[in-house]
Amino acid sequence: MNAGAGTPASDRVRVRRKPERGHYDRATIDAILDGAILGHVGFVVDDQPYVIPTAIWRQGDRLYWHGSSASRMLRATVGARVCITVSRMDALVLARSGFDHSIDYRSVVVLGTAHLVEDDADKLAALETFVERLYPGRWATLRPPRPNELKATTVLWTDLTEASAKIRDIGAHDEPGDETWPTWAGTIPLRTVVGEPIPDVFVADGMPVPEVVLEARG
Amino acid sequence: MNAGAGTPASDRVRVRRKPERGHYDRATIDAILDGAILGHVGFVVDDQPYVIPTAIWRQGDRLYWHGSSASRMLRATVGARVCITVSRMDALVLARSGFDHSIDYRSVVVLGTAHLVEDDADKLAALETFVERLYPGRWATLRPPRPNELKATTVLWTDLTEASAKIRDIGAHDEPGDETWPTWAGTIPLRTVVGEPIPDVFVADGMPVPEVVLEARG
Repeated sequence: MNAGAGTPASDRVRVRRKPERGHYDRATIDAILDGAILGHVGFVVDDQPYVIPTAIWRQGDRLYWHGSSASRMLRATVGARVCITVSRMDALVLARSGFDHSIDYRSVVVLGTAHLVEDDADKLAALETFVERLYPGRWATLRPPRPNELKATTVLWTDLTEASAKIRDIGAHDEPGDETWPTWAGTIPLRTVVGEPIPDVFVADGMPVPEVVLEARG
Repeated sequence: MNAGAGTPASDRVRVRRKPERGHYDRATIDAILDGAILGHVGFVVDDQPYVIPTAIWRQGDRLYWHGSSASRMLRATVGARVCITVSRMDALVLARSGFDHSIDYRSVVVLGTAHLVEDDADKLAALETFVERLYPGRWATLRPPRPNELKATTVLWTDLTEASAKIRDIGAHDEPGDETWPTWAGTIPLRTVVGEPIPDVFVADGMPVPEVVLEARG
């Protein structure tokens, strides 16, 4: 997608001026959400915005997150407006001027109202979805949840009606005339990799290691 | 740091109940900020919180971010309360119950007021710091900034007086008695890696590739 030397300067300028493209289709939005582990939840308490990193997961038209029922911050968001942002960096972008340095990335911003999952069966189903999407098949192998654990866990959701995505994937774009400036320009990819699993001291030899779904890497 | 079988159950419960430790010393806070590329800036417009991913950098007691002067959202934050959160996942944590699954991570939350860098020389110095901390030695190789580019760039900062860090690094901790449940438990490390640089079409053969500072990986 690099605008090469044969591209008219006017087109290159146009591309440069709109380097981040907005997307409003659910396929694009869902792909970014489903490829993330972490989101950043924004909410307001006494005119002060807070942004808290937390695991997120999508189920149909809803985006879920959870936390401790003891968290005042989590309880304060119930019924309130929130913004949940998911982002991943794909590459550092180096241009020949400081001004045109950038980052190729994908992000989703979801505006909405935080709703509480009240029903225990619904809460359990949401938590199962959360575990299963990261580690398929794992839920059935776990020690089943206890009522006090379920009570100690608060699950929230918001719908995806006010969701939008932004993607920058065009690499380096210099101002017309800068291409011959004698410094390196291009992209340096960034990637999240899953390392070697480290069992805890109680894991028996030969016990199968859970698979982490690659698409769920942050 | 795993609480092994020899640890009294009461201690293990204590560890489990406080798995995320708060840190308020600047050395810990600075190390997390300086190890990040991206932050999430939270601000409020008409009672709606917004969370926008953006590159951040620290200089002394200030945390900086920047954007297009054409951005209404960026201009709306000048003088307003903001929250800038930086987070990185270090590992997925798998326990023997769903309840004890977690993520080992490091994060910093900075609450503050957004200030505009008004002076052109200060703005230039801030942008130089931004480029240099990611790509040491690169600023001097770039086509120098033009006045219109400087004007098109807005640089904001907030101080670090209301900054705090959270670190979870204790791996898997099960409820007492769960250790013998027959499923795998432990940590699966996550790491951001820098890929092979991809030069754009104008880069001459043999031109040196800029070094990306490893500590600056997100």
